[in-house]
Amino acid sequence: MPTDALSPRSTIGILGGGQLGRMLAIAAAELGFRTHIFCPEEDCPAAQVANDVTLAPYEDEAALAAFAGTIDVATYEFENVPESAVAVLEKTVPVRPGRKPLAVAQDRLEEKKFLGRIGVETAPFAKVDSATDIAAAAQTTALPAVLKTRSGGYDGKGQTKIDQDTDHKAAFTAIGEAPAILEGFIAFERELSVIIARGVNGDVAAFDAAENEHRDHILWRSHVPGAIPPEQSEKAGTIATAIIEALDYVGVLGVEFFALPGGALLVNEIAPRVHNSGHWTQDAAYVSQFEQQIRAVAGWPLGDPVRHSDVVMENLIGDDVSGWDLLAAEPGTHVHLYGKAEARPGRKMGHVNRTSPKTNR
Amino acid sequence: MPTDALSPRSTIGILGGGQLGRMLAIAAAELGFRTHIFCPEEDCPAAQVANDVTLAPYEDEAALAAFAGTIDVATYEFENVPESAVAVLEKTVPVRPGRKPLAVAQDRLEEKKFLGRIGVETAPFAKVDSATDIAAAAQTTALPAVLKTRSGGYDGKGQTKIDQDTDHKAAFTAIGEAPAILEGFIAFERELSVIIARGVNGDVAAFDAAENEHRDHILWRSHVPGAIPPEQSEKAGTIATAIIEALDYVGVLGVEFFALPGGALLVNEIAPRVHNSGHWTQDAAYVSQFEQQIRAVAGWPLGDPVRHSDVVMENLIGDDVSGWDLLAAEPGTHVHLYGKAEARPGRKMGHVNRTSPKTNR
Repeated sequence: MPTDALSPRSTIGILGGGQLGRMLAIAAAELGFRTHIFCPEEDCPAAQVANDVTLAPYEDEAALAAFAGTIDVATYEFENVPESAVAVLEKTVPVRPGRKPLAVAQDRLEEKKFLGRIGVETAPFAKVDSATDIAAAAQTTALPAVLKTRSGGYDGKGQTKIDQDTDHKAAFTAIGEAPAILEGFIAFERELSVIIARGVNGDVAAFDAAENEHRDHILWRSHVPGAIPPEQSEKAGTIATAIIEALDYVGVLGVEFFALPGGALLVNEIAPRVHNSGHWTQDAAYVSQFEQQIRAVAGWPLGDPVRHSDVVMENLIGDDVSGWDLLAAEPGTHVHLYGKAEARPGRKMGHVNRTSPKTNR
Repeated sequence: MPTDALSPRSTIGILGGGQLGRMLAIAAAELGFRTHIFCPEEDCPAAQVANDVTLAPYEDEAALAAFAGTIDVATYEFENVPESAVAVLEKTVPVRPGRKPLAVAQDRLEEKKFLGRIGVETAPFAKVDSATDIAAAAQTTALPAVLKTRSGGYDGKGQTKIDQDTDHKAAFTAIGEAPAILEGFIAFERELSVIIARGVNGDVAAFDAAENEHRDHILWRSHVPGAIPPEQSEKAGTIATAIIEALDYVGVLGVEFFALPGGALLVNEIAPRVHNSGHWTQDAAYVSQFEQQIRAVAGWPLGDPVRHSDVVMENLIGDDVSGWDLLAAEPGTHVHLYGKAEARPGRKMGHVNRTSPKTNR
């Protein structure tokens, strides 16, 4: 046991109050920890289940400092929390996974460069700071390609496709004229992801890879094991291990991959937090990604990531949630809802995990 | 789907703020419900994870009425909540499982008489209202026997053994001179329990029976399947079904049995709530007893009680919890702690579930 393992009833601070924070707070409570949520929105999903809540913007340094004074360790539930907020907390408490992975994950260019430095393959890419950079960038990436803002984009926001006949100026305007990268378009066979964790003691534990399906650029379903050959799942785990070790990371990391027809794996992006494609762990593994994250940030040994069932996770997006009554009646379907009041289009309202006996693959 | 199924974001009121209320509140949050805890003690385990808390004694009718005004349905987490408190709530909201099972479970004499009326076998028993009743009662039960208060006893409190040479007056004083029953001492082969649920629509779902081990009259371990022959588990489920139907019950019910050497089953007692011997469901079944209770009281269809793993639940009582760091490091051991500040002797501080692959029995 690391000497700095937090004892039960210690308080874990979480920056961010969305559904990931909510599920982290629940996992923390199961282990006997207290939680304190820092979030800018009232009645946020995580606040509903936490011991304490600070309602303030991430730029409020006094509120952050006061928050830090009430907690024993901090983590964050999304990668767009300002680095400056983490810096304030770090003066008082450990923040896990800390600022380095945040800096890497907040900037697609830095992320790609970091992955390249440690020998992890990605799509070809080039920096784009203006519409006039796009033509030269396309020499590096080939076309079609995708123009993506370096920061702030998620669920398909802040991206646009570039073809031979795309108007470069219009495309750059479409992404808000923000610093960007052009990324070669990958004709992948499948998308997959690995949820991996690293403890304070350096131990690493990866869950089985999930095969992901998107709908309107938002994750729709994760299948485990899906159609992923076991050796590909293992290879993805090896790459994810190299990444989490290079970041000297503590906590749960999501790594998204493109699998090419020949079997090669390119890393699409990394998320320094629990990840939507890891929600399946709640009902098909003995330890969920949320418990794993709490164990890691609390300095506890990691849980065994073994899977006991096959599973398909399906997101409930916007109006999907109105089918809660039918979903609740489906045998083998495990309903998870986030306590959000308004089912706006594109908003993640919940998810279900459909389990079945484990196959041998 | 029953027409009165509560939609997500409805509020479930829970009388009682202990660990059972805590785990119910967590299960409710997973399904997208809000919770409001009514409990007389500050910083109680359930309040730490609930949306709202009312801190008041169960005798405070104004507080109960105000509480009822904020919730959509109520339940209770222990059977010693005063019937009068439930009566106040019932004026405003459905209370599940309601007053009838409470009345039966609060009085050992009523409980035994009820079980006898529906043809369920129990230990022989007789009513004891004074020390002088004990001799006649012993004619019915034979000796040795156990003198138990009719109400208020739990974890071995309020009971004393009666042998041939026991002083009856001293024994009656030992249990507080309260209305009591004398119960024939059962030389059982094993103790087991069944956690069973009934929905608003009348559907019934029983989990596999657990074999229970006690230490100092407090549940120590529950083994599933333990040494229970499959036909005995099934028979226990059949008896539990008869009981839950006779009570016209909605919610989760715990039924404790003595298994005699020849295989016969006597019912020891029933608990109108989630039950300590059902904590194993959290890590070895797809639906926990806590989710099952929330589903039932919310008018949702019951979950499938199928078990995916073998499991041994072990309570962490008093100082046991100081071993949290070793337990956290055990592979296959799932730690659940209740957020209680003080580890007093005999106090339930948490539990662990140790899982292993499911055997075929």
